[in-house]
This record gives sequence, structure tokens and C-alpha cells, in this order.
Amino acid sequence: MVKDKHEPVILVTNDDGISAPGIRNLIEAVKDLGKVVVVAPDKPQSGMGHAITIGIPLRLNKVNIFGDIEAYQCTGTPVDCVKLAVDKVLHSKPDICISGINHGANHSINVIYSGTMSAAVEAAIESIPSIGFSLLDYSLEADFTAARKYARMIIEQMLSTPSDKHTVLNVNIPSARPEEIKGVKICRQAYAKYEEDFIERHDPHGRKYYWLTGEFVNFDEGDDTDVWALANNYVSIVPVQFDLTHYSLKEKLEKTWKFDS
Amino acid sequence: MVKDKHEPVILVTNDDGISAPGIRNLIEAVKDLGKVVVVAPDKPQSGMGHAITIGIPLRLNKVNIFGDIEAYQCTGTPVDCVKLAVDKVLHSKPDICISGINHGANHSINVIYSGTMSAAVEAAIESIPSIGFSLLDYSLEADFTAARKYARMIIEQMLSTPSDKHTVLNVNIPSARPEEIKGVKICRQAYAKYEEDFIERHDPHGRKYYWLTGEFVNFDEGDDTDVWALANNYVSIVPVQFDLTHYSLKEKLEKTWKFDS
Repeated sequence: MVKDKHEPVILVTNDDGISAPGIRNLIEAVKDLGKVVVVAPDKPQSGMGHAITIGIPLRLNKVNIFGDIEAYQCTGTPVDCVKLAVDKVLHSKPDICISGINHGANHSINVIYSGTMSAAVEAAIESIPSIGFSLLDYSLEADFTAARKYARMIIEQMLSTPSDKHTVLNVNIPSARPEEIKGVKICRQAYAKYEEDFIERHDPHGRKYYWLTGEFVNFDEGDDTDVWALANNYVSIVPVQFDLTHYSLKEKLEKTWKFDS
Repeated sequence: MVKDKHEPVILVTNDDGISAPGIRNLIEAVKDLGKVVVVAPDKPQSGMGHAITIGIPLRLNKVNIFGDIEAYQCTGTPVDCVKLAVDKVLHSKPDICISGINHGANHSINVIYSGTMSAAVEAAIESIPSIGFSLLDYSLEADFTAARKYARMIIEQMLSTPSDKHTVLNVNIPSARPEEIKGVKICRQAYAKYEEDFIERHDPHGRKYYWLTGEFVNFDEGDDTDVWALANNYVSIVPVQFDLTHYSLKEKLEKTWKFDS
């Protein structure tokens, strides 16, 4: 439910670029829930993680591609988009930041490589509750019907519940029809990752180059993980933190490591 | 102490680029502790976070700039360097990965933007114990005497103690002479961040562009943080995790959020 007294300001971004179908579907899902403002990369930025642009300046240009929705494309990374949106477009913090809908999964360790999720994490660092959405279908022709339904449901839930300002959720949606999805599960991040295998090729001048590829391997047998939920046709929600301190290891090192300086 | 029966393989990388003084100082600090192999970016990659290169292929070229130390420069990000080193240079996992010594602080939230730390985190994801080192001095003429001393001490500690294969430490060293440093503290990550303020300029054609700048603000009054330790002339060690699940929020949402699908 939209709050009565205040129309929420909803900042929308992504990492597939402003022309990707995923961001258009996310805007469609929420445009009647508040004032929507879009600031997104002008080109694909998948796998950019939490990169920021330091060595070169950024450009920001207004675009008219979403009807009457205010929208800007930015030359920077997804994290740059959030920073610029707050400082130079909105001039204040939005009520919520939503990122996506990503074309492809961002479950398990992918959260750390994902530009979609890094944009959401950046918002939470800046005290803006946020959600990143990803659909388990890389195709540009993916069917976003179920993703739109669940994105709206989860955004309404967040807007209607008092949330800590640093809240950030990683939502993944199975590639399935709405009637095939069994519901929503709150999960932990699975320990599952890509096992790298670079493909080696030679250019026309005989010099080597490498393409990053990899096989996804799940090392985690838990039934409380995002990977388990998605494999069983649930929408997964993993609450994410940006305090990376490993507290149990901290305690152990305090007891066992001694330094004489 | 170096292990008796096995000369440890030490992978060295950084984010300031292979020609930065920081990586040369790190190599100097450890070259007699085992077999050192360097794979580092061919250009500065500060602020690249956990970015990986997907859309273009990578190049890897052997360089002879560290005497008899085997070294390669890579066209990719710090994380790409670690992945390529394991798969195409070492063909197996090194005993330890060390990253840095970064020119500039990577305490508090900087851990999330830092290419230096992301390289170390990538190693830990790949089951290689790792440490990222940063000196609180951006200058290319920085004095690394204290940084070398403490880097070696902490690496020796890790090599001589059985560590979980996913261990990753974020080490920051004050900009001070060795005799001014009071010792080493195991810390948590401070909640401290840059408050953004983009500088707006106009190019010769009258079009706007933006430079990212910011003022560092510490919101954390704890005396157990990395920021506190460094301000009091201690070397800070923060153990880092890559399971980003916010467990206490997970528990809260499980109790309070209900979805009817």
C-alpha cells in the first residue's frame, strides 16, 4: 500500500543499461506506487560489482523513453548512477531504491559481482532502503510476467512496513509462469560459485587472449538457501549487509594471534 | 616462519597497477618467504570493487621488472588477475594471496569499493587464504618502511598458523615511522563513509560533466573499529567475510513479512 500522506519517491536503476527490457518491466510494475525517477547506465554494466568511476568525469543526460517518467542515462557504473541520482537529480534521498530487473540470476556469490545488487547496496549505505531484482533468464526476450508481479508485491511490502534505512534485499525470481511459482522464501546466501575456466584463443597476429567462462557449482546442501528456493520454484529474498566484518573469526584471532612490535 | 617441508607459493596482486611502488614494496617484504608469482593489472584499477571483465577478452603478458621474480601484467581488473593467475599461470591454488600495498586507506566502507580488497576477497572465495594491505598515504613517494615491516609480520603469522581456506584480512597501516606505530589491533569495520559531492563543470562545448568527490565522515564512535585503531597509530586488521547474508534481519523478516501469492 502506498502511504497516505506522502507520495513515495522511487529511484530506479539497473546494470543491463537503460534500454534493457528488465528496467522497463520494473518501471511498469511500480509506476502507480509513487513518483518514479530513473537514473541508469547508458550501456550494459554487468559484472561491474561495486566499481566507481574515479579517473574520468561522468555525463548525465535526460532521455524520453518511458513516457511521462523522468529518466536519465549516465556514462558511469550502477553505483555511480545511485550517487549521481541522489546528489544531482533528486537533491535528497528517495524513499526507496529499486534495481533491475536483471537479465540473469544474482543468487549465491553473484551478489558480490553484480552491478544490479551493488547499486542496491550503495543505496543502503546511503541510508536508502533498497531492493535488487533478478530474473533467472538471460534472454532479452524473457517473460517478466511473474517477475513484475513479485517485484510489486515485495516493494509494496517494504513501502508499507517501517524498515531500517540500511535494509537491502536481494530478490531472485525463477524463470517460470506466475502459476508455477510456489511463493516467497526468506533465505541465506548459498555457498555456490562459478568454477573458472578461461578459454584461450589466438588473435590474427598470433597473440593469446582469454575469455572468462565458468561452470556453476553449488557446494551448499542447505534447504534454507537462495539456490535451493529457486530450484524449488520459490522467489528468494536474501537480506544483505555491508558490514563485511567476519565477527567469529575476529574473536578467534583476538585469542590466538599475538604480535610483538 | 616459513613451513619446513614445502616452500609456500605466494601470489601477489594489487589495484594500483604493476608499476606502482606499493606492489614493489610488498614483493620486497616477502620474496624470501616462498616462491613469489606476480599477476597484476597493467594500469591503475582503483575503485574497481569486485568488477570482472565479461564483454571483452583479457590479455596477459610476462614482464621482467622485479629481477628474478616471475611476473605478468593483465589488461583486466584485480579480480580478473586472481582468476587468471590460478587458472592460466599457477595452474593450481597458491598457499596465500597478498594484495597491495595500496596507496591510500581501505578501512571502513572502503573495503567494498577497493580493488585491492576485492582481489583478496576473490582469492578467499576460491579457497585461498588472503590479505589485502593498504597504507594511509596516497603519494607515489610514500614511505613504505612501516608497511613492509607489518606486512611481513602478518604474512608470516598467517603462513605459520593453520587458517581456514576462506580467511581474508583487511590490513591498514598508519602513515607513520615504524617507531611511532603502537602495535596491531584486530578490529571491526567502522561505519564511516564518504559523503558525496559531485563537482559540476562544463566542457568547451558547454556540456555538463561531473567529478566524483567526497568528504570522509565517521559515524561510528566505537573504539574497536579500524578507523579508531588507525587514528591512534595502530595497524588495523579486519577479518572479512563474503557471505553477505544479514542474518538478524533474515530472522526478523521471517517473523514479520507475510506474502499471499
